[in-house]
Amino acid sequence: MSIQNQQKKLTIGLFGFGVVGESLYRVLQETPTLQASIKKVCIKHPEKKRSAPENLFTTDPEVLLSDSSINVIVELIDDADAAYYIVSKALSERKAVVSANKKLIAGHLEELIALQKHFDVPFLYESACCASIPVIRNLEEYYDNDLLQGISGIVNGSTNYILTKIFDEGKSYDDALLQAQYEGFAESDPSLDVEGVDAVNKLTILLAHAYGILAFPSDIVHTGIQNLHSADAVYAKEKGYQIKLLAQAKKLVDGRISAFVLPQFVKGDSQFRNVQNEYNGVTIESSLADRQFFYGKGAGGYPTASAVLSDLSALRYDYRYEYKKLRYGLPAELTDEVYLRVYLSFDKLFQVQNERFERIEEWSSNERRCHVTGVIKFAQLLDTSWWKKPNTSLILLPDAFVTDVTETARLAEEELAFV
Amino acid sequence: MSIQNQQKKLTIGLFGFGVVGESLYRVLQETPTLQASIKKVCIKHPEKKRSAPENLFTTDPEVLLSDSSINVIVELIDDADAAYYIVSKALSERKAVVSANKKLIAGHLEELIALQKHFDVPFLYESACCASIPVIRNLEEYYDNDLLQGISGIVNGSTNYILTKIFDEGKSYDDALLQAQYEGFAESDPSLDVEGVDAVNKLTILLAHAYGILAFPSDIVHTGIQNLHSADAVYAKEKGYQIKLLAQAKKLVDGRISAFVLPQFVKGDSQFRNVQNEYNGVTIESSLADRQFFYGKGAGGYPTASAVLSDLSALRYDYRYEYKKLRYGLPAELTDEVYLRVYLSFDKLFQVQNERFERIEEWSSNERRCHVTGVIKFAQLLDTSWWKKPNTSLILLPDAFVTDVTETARLAEEELAFV
Repeated sequence: MSIQNQQKKLTIGLFGFGVVGESLYRVLQETPTLQASIKKVCIKHPEKKRSAPENLFTTDPEVLLSDSSINVIVELIDDADAAYYIVSKALSERKAVVSANKKLIAGHLEELIALQKHFDVPFLYESACCASIPVIRNLEEYYDNDLLQGISGIVNGSTNYILTKIFDEGKSYDDALLQAQYEGFAESDPSLDVEGVDAVNKLTILLAHAYGILAFPSDIVHTGIQNLHSADAVYAKEKGYQIKLLAQAKKLVDGRISAFVLPQFVKGDSQFRNVQNEYNGVTIESSLADRQFFYGKGAGGYPTASAVLSDLSALRYDYRYEYKKLRYGLPAELTDEVYLRVYLSFDKLFQVQNERFERIEEWSSNERRCHVTGVIKFAQLLDTSWWKKPNTSLILLPDAFVTDVTETARLAEEELAFV
Repeated sequence: MSIQNQQKKLTIGLFGFGVVGESLYRVLQETPTLQASIKKVCIKHPEKKRSAPENLFTTDPEVLLSDSSINVIVELIDDADAAYYIVSKALSERKAVVSANKKLIAGHLEELIALQKHFDVPFLYESACCASIPVIRNLEEYYDNDLLQGISGIVNGSTNYILTKIFDEGKSYDDALLQAQYEGFAESDPSLDVEGVDAVNKLTILLAHAYGILAFPSDIVHTGIQNLHSADAVYAKEKGYQIKLLAQAKKLVDGRISAFVLPQFVKGDSQFRNVQNEYNGVTIESSLADRQFFYGKGAGGYPTASAVLSDLSALRYDYRYEYKKLRYGLPAELTDEVYLRVYLSFDKLFQVQNERFERIEEWSSNERRCHVTGVIKFAQLLDTSWWKKPNTSLILLPDAFVTDVTETARLAEEELAFV
C-alpha cells in the first residue's frame, strides 16, 4: 500500500433501509470527517415511514446503478437473488461495492472475485462475517502466510443467543428462538440460522481468505442446533461443558484442510465459554503465536453497520482484498480424511449404527435417551441420513481432532474392530 | 492497496539471535513459501554457541547495513540506543525495517515516522505491542476512522503473569517476579515491566496509531504494580474484583483523549478477567460496534517471532503504516481534564491528603492499612509525589471514568466541598 495524500470522497448509493441501513445513514450524517455521503437509497416498500427526507428514496435500482456520480454501492438487502443482480451490475459499472450479504457472497464467491478482477474495482464484505469483528481483514492482511494452523469460531449470533438462553437461563428452544427474533438477532427465515446455513456461508467466506479455498456451502458438512435434545444439556452439565455451534477449518499434517460446522462441547478453559448471547468469537491458531481470540458483537444493526463503515473507510484509501492465498500460493485443498471424537445421542427406539464408529469409548442408555461417544471417520458424516435428523444429535467432543499420528494409523489398522 | 502480481523476495539482515531471533531463523528455514531468507546475523557475543552455521554470524553491524543485497533489517536486540543507530541507519539506506523494540520506537516515534517518509521505506513493529495480537495493524487499517471511542488493554505480559501468580496462586511478589524471569517473560531489567515503563511505551505507540497523537512516554501518567499491597488484594477479593495493570486511552465528550497506565480493579464480567499469566488482551471500543476484544500471547519468544513474521510477510506486498490519523485528519489532543474514581491505600502513619479528592465515597482504617475511595481530578495525578511511592497504592475502580456530564459539572461546582 503506497502513501496517498488524497482521500477519496465517497458518494454512496444504498440498497436497503432496515436497521443497518438506517444507522449507517445516521452515522454518516453525524461524522462529516468520513467524507462519505448517501446520495440515494433504494427501498422495496415506499409506503413505510422513514426517518430521512422523502427525496432520498427510490424504488428503482437503476436510478442508483446508472448514476455516474455514485462511486460506491452499499448493498444491505435480505434477498440474495436481488442482491446478486445489484452487486454484479454495480461491479460491472466499475462502482466499488460493500455488502453484508453472506448468502450472496458464499454462493457466488468465485464469480464475484473474477468480476472484481475484471473490472478492477473493490468489493468489501467484512460485515458478512461476525459483523463487528474484523476477521476477514485480519486473515487477508495479517495471517497472510502459510503458518495459519486453524480458525474456529462462533459465527452465528442468533444460535449462540438461543443456546445461551436455553443452557444458562433454562428457557425452552421455542421461547429462546422467539426472543432472538424479537431482539433482531435472527434472520427473517430462522431456519437459516438454526440449521447452520448462515454459519456455513460464513465458513465458506473464511475459507477463501484463510486458505484460498473456494468451496460451495452445500458441499461442506454442516448442521445447526435444530436437533439438540435436553438430554444433551444434561450430559454437558455433568461434564462441565457448554454446547456451542462452531464453524471450523483446521490444517492437517499433510497441509490439507478439514472444515465443517457442527455443535461442540466446550470446556471451562475455552475462550468460547465467555461468548454469550449474540456475541461472536473467533480463535485463530498459527504455528508460532499459539491461539489468538477475537471477540465482539456478531449480530444486530449497529455492529453490522460498524463493519460496513470500516469498509467504507477503507475504500477512501482504495483498499481491496487481494485474495493472496488464492492468487500467489498454492491454494489449500479440503479433505475428508480425518478422525473426530464425537458424541451421538438418540431415542431409545433408534438403533445406533455401531459400524459408523472406529472406536466406541462411552455408552449410556436409559428410558428417555441413549448416547454413545467415540471416534469416527469424518467421511461417515458425508452421508447425513443417519445422523442429521430429528431425535438424533451429533456433537463434537472437546479436542475433537484425533491428531496423534500413531493413533490415527492404529485406528486405520483397527478399522471396524469394534463393530 | 493495488493488486500486485509479484511478491517481493526478502533478503534479511538480522540483529540479535536471542529466543525471538533464533525461532525466526528456524521458521524461515522451514517455510520456503515465505520467500524470505536471513543472509547475515549480527550478534554481540560471538563466544556463545549458536544453533546455526558459523559463517552466518558477524559482530560488525556495518556488514549488514552496507550490504546492498539485504533489503530488510530485522532488529531484535535489547539495547535501545544501539537499536536506534541500527534502525535509523537502515532506513536511511532505504532498507525496510522490522523492529520489536518498543522503547526505541516510543522514544523516537516522531523522528522515525519522518525517516520513513523521507526515505520512502516501510518500518513495521507489530511485535512491539502485545506481541502476537495484531493491534497496531487493526488500529491502522480497520479502526481508521474517528469513531474509535477508546482502547484499553493488558499490554505487559510480565506484570500480568506476576499478578496472576500473586492473586490466583498466592505467591509472594518476589517469587512471582523470579518465576516470570525464569519463564522469559520479564525484560532483562524487570523494573521496566513492574513500574509500568514497558506498558507506557506501548501506550505511546498505540496513541499514534489510534488517534494520531505523538507523545513522550515520560509525559504520560503511569505506574506499575510495584507499590501494590497485600491489603489491596484482600479488598479486591471482598468486592469480587481482580487487579490488572491497564494501559488506556479514552475519547472524551469534547473529542480530546485521556491516556494513562494504572492498575485497575476489574469486575467479574470484564473480558480482562480471562486474561491470565503472560497473555495480553486489548479492548477496542467504537461508536457502533460496542467493545471488541483481542486476546493472545503477549510475551515470549515465539509469539513475538510470529508478529515479526507477519510484518515480514506484509513487506512482501510493500505494506507500510500510513499513520492516517496523523496525516489526513486533525490529530486528537491529550487532556488532563477528566475525573476518575480511584481507590487509594496507604500505611496508617501516612495521612491521606483529603484535599486531593473531589469526593470521598468510602473510607476504612485499621492497624495494618487504610484505604479511601472517591473521585479525583486526573490533574492531581500529574504531581506523583503524593501517590506514586512505596506504601501507597493507587488503583482505579471499575468504570473509573466519571462520564456523566451532569455529575462532572456538579463535581466541578462542589470542588473542595469535601475537604
